[in-house]
Amino acid sequence: MSSLFNRTIVFLLGFMPKALVRRFAARYIAGDTLQNAIDLVKDLNRQGMMATLDVLGEEIHNLAEARFAVDEYKRCVKAIVDHQLDANISLKPTQFGLGQDVSVAEANIREVIQEARKFNIFVRIDMEDSRYTTATYELYLRLKREFSNVGTVMQAYLRRSHQDAVNMIPQHINLRLCKGIYVEPREIAYKDPVLVNQNYALVLEELIRGKVYVGIATHDERLVWEGMRLVRKYQLGRKDYEFQMLLGVDKELRDIILKAGHRLRLYVPYGNQWYAYSTRRLKENPQVARHILNNLLKPG
Amino acid sequence: MSSLFNRTIVFLLGFMPKALVRRFAARYIAGDTLQNAIDLVKDLNRQGMMATLDVLGEEIHNLAEARFAVDEYKRCVKAIVDHQLDANISLKPTQFGLGQDVSVAEANIREVIQEARKFNIFVRIDMEDSRYTTATYELYLRLKREFSNVGTVMQAYLRRSHQDAVNMIPQHINLRLCKGIYVEPREIAYKDPVLVNQNYALVLEELIRGKVYVGIATHDERLVWEGMRLVRKYQLGRKDYEFQMLLGVDKELRDIILKAGHRLRLYVPYGNQWYAYSTRRLKENPQVARHILNNLLKPG
Repeated sequence: MSSLFNRTIVFLLGFMPKALVRRFAARYIAGDTLQNAIDLVKDLNRQGMMATLDVLGEEIHNLAEARFAVDEYKRCVKAIVDHQLDANISLKPTQFGLGQDVSVAEANIREVIQEARKFNIFVRIDMEDSRYTTATYELYLRLKREFSNVGTVMQAYLRRSHQDAVNMIPQHINLRLCKGIYVEPREIAYKDPVLVNQNYALVLEELIRGKVYVGIATHDERLVWEGMRLVRKYQLGRKDYEFQMLLGVDKELRDIILKAGHRLRLYVPYGNQWYAYSTRRLKENPQVARHILNNLLKPG
Repeated sequence: MSSLFNRTIVFLLGFMPKALVRRFAARYIAGDTLQNAIDLVKDLNRQGMMATLDVLGEEIHNLAEARFAVDEYKRCVKAIVDHQLDANISLKPTQFGLGQDVSVAEANIREVIQEARKFNIFVRIDMEDSRYTTATYELYLRLKREFSNVGTVMQAYLRRSHQDAVNMIPQHINLRLCKGIYVEPREIAYKDPVLVNQNYALVLEELIRGKVYVGIATHDERLVWEGMRLVRKYQLGRKDYEFQMLLGVDKELRDIILKAGHRLRLYVPYGNQWYAYSTRRLKENPQVARHILNNLLKPG
């Protein structure tokens, strides 16, 4: 979607009642509770998909709130073990206090990773907006020296990403590569969707050539195609990489990836802090935008 | 912009009062005088950009007019030296008589290059419309044998350009590569913007692989991206190439190029012969086109 279109949708979402946002966004979220997420992941596992659990929430207001995140993610770890789910976890550093105090956030995240390591469960540190890019990579690289069950995310829309890839490859990183969804200034992020795709392909090849385990996270079939091409070109084994998609997006593309013999992991968010996540999802969905516009513009 | 769109704008510009053209085009031109250009280049230099000075004017009516160009370019050379500007000069062969007499034009241009060489200042021979392509390359290659401080320009929209590149690479050329802005018949020039871009990328890689010093002259961010990719791929040093943009176009893109650590040279035209240059610039600017249309179509 174009940047202007995105900005229009973000603007319109401001006028949309929260209940309506929630209704449109329901498909992207497992539900309010961990039990909802467990049920959904069991179903995905039966269909041959892996999952990553995400506790909704970000940008806390004080460090006390981070305790909730630590405790809830530990419950996630326990649920994965108890229910023998084929799943790992993804967490947002700002939910652990990165906006307030880096060392507190690091201690909080370490606590989750330590718990997960007991059961050999992998932890993905999500990447948020560009205010946190450097801090998140630094945090990740420090934790990486202590733990092997940790990875982070690279956003192909950032102009810095190729250089970040080149710099980090020697450190045996594990990355999810996505386009990126936050609203960033043109000085630091590609706005042209053609360039975002070209940069995604460039960075992906750099990572695969550098023997990085990559989560190829995209709903763009052109990039799925490019991912499959690179998997063949570099003769990767089935477990040397994975495709990733968000819950609620393009079930046909899921089937296409699975039928082609690749592993696919779904990002499964749950919880009651659904608003920020939902608005980011909705602005990617042109059909939803059309619904919103129709609702806002219809008389009466 | 599409060719039809371009032709429409060229047509509409014919109805536009010259004063209005000038007002819209002011941002693309340093001013009427050499002093205007000097002041502007000092400012660009302070901001970390290099410049190339251009004395506006082209297609003279008799060879006597060429004396003006020779004298004015010598004043440019003196100004660059006196003010220690990080700048070189760009000149149009038709302003030196190429349309009347090749050998007179060559003698005139030689006089400027000789003067510039005393101070180690580089001279770029601009490329004009396709009537002059062969004559300009031949002129350049003759002068190249006498002087090392001279280069010319290749236009990626011309179908012949890739072959021209292959032919000239062994002669240690120095080229600015641009898309090209003149209105050319389809038989000799690509009209499809996708093909112009593909040909630009093809020719650029041919030149860089052939160790040619290239001025990567474009405002198309996709080509800037391609330029940066090739610079990395062929591991060019910072002084093995430069990016180039015209004065008045896309300041954000300037910053993007500079922040990525590349050298950038701005094309700085000055003088009172601003009409032909301005109409070529305006037809590239869709916002200006909208203004013109609004002005022409509004009632009263």
